[in-house]
Amino acid sequence: MLYDITVPQFTKMLQNLNKIIDKSVAHAEAKKFDFDILLNSRLAPDQFNFIRQVQIACDTAKLGVARLCGKEAPVWEDQEKTLSEVKARIEKTIDYLKGFTAKDFDGAESRTISQPRWEGKYLTGTEFAIQHALPNLYFHITTAYSILRHNGVDVGKKDYLGEMPFKK
Amino acid sequence: MLYDITVPQFTKMLQNLNKIIDKSVAHAEAKKFDFDILLNSRLAPDQFNFIRQVQIACDTAKLGVARLCGKEAPVWEDQEKTLSEVKARIEKTIDYLKGFTAKDFDGAESRTISQPRWEGKYLTGTEFAIQHALPNLYFHITTAYSILRHNGVDVGKKDYLGEMPFKK
Repeated sequence: MLYDITVPQFTKMLQNLNKIIDKSVAHAEAKKFDFDILLNSRLAPDQFNFIRQVQIACDTAKLGVARLCGKEAPVWEDQEKTLSEVKARIEKTIDYLKGFTAKDFDGAESRTISQPRWEGKYLTGTEFAIQHALPNLYFHITTAYSILRHNGVDVGKKDYLGEMPFKK
Repeated sequence: MLYDITVPQFTKMLQNLNKIIDKSVAHAEAKKFDFDILLNSRLAPDQFNFIRQVQIACDTAKLGVARLCGKEAPVWEDQEKTLSEVKARIEKTIDYLKGFTAKDFDGAESRTISQPRWEGKYLTGTEFAIQHALPNLYFHITTAYSILRHNGVDVGKKDYLGEMPFKK
């Protein structure tokens, strides 16, 4: 189950984010302003800008899944400055998630998960996934979305949620 | 597992939201402005205001859990206008969630979930929880938080995430 609530859903949310960015680029072109302005926008002067929100969303997905599976995630420096670099970071993260299967999550529920800043304290895999990785991922994707929305980009919650696997 | 990713975590996030509101009220008092201004603030002119974000977060939790358990949720009119009414709505939702146990979720994974606006289409309980209820809940709580953050309230991601059940 920890696989189901992370890998496929994190992948979907990052794909949604990518489409939201594409919509924003089209919006910037139509309004004749430079999309880079949005890359560097933020909701408060002491909050991270759009690029940083995307970087953290990507790292939350990458590190969250790696930690749950007891693997060492690759380190990616936060050097993105342009639209194509930001989109490449998202794509790279989606590709990384593709490397994980449900089998990799065997034992993840009770795995001991820690982070350098937790100074030796830990959570179980289940606690980490539900109370840390998921709320963090949604936080940064929603904040990235809100920065664009606040700046007039015509995106809505359907873009954030993405397609639903509806049946009839 | 659908119980674990919804009832306790939705409860925790609503409690965090309540504390964030308390911090914001203290901030408004210190800055000598009327907190009601924040209740009616929004990030974009065509986006819901703070009160509505809280109402939807509450309904997402209430309806999400009720639908997963095959129960009929009570209808609460969206009539909150004051701080105490908004906080009462959150408390009422937390109380409602207390009525559910893991046992109520027996069979929830494969339950057929629909909403009036889906015009007969449906999701399985697992799909609904992971792809709809959770991202929606986090979306509206993050947006409520961002409206306050955007207006200078001194809250941070720790307030949003709440306490972690750290072990040593």
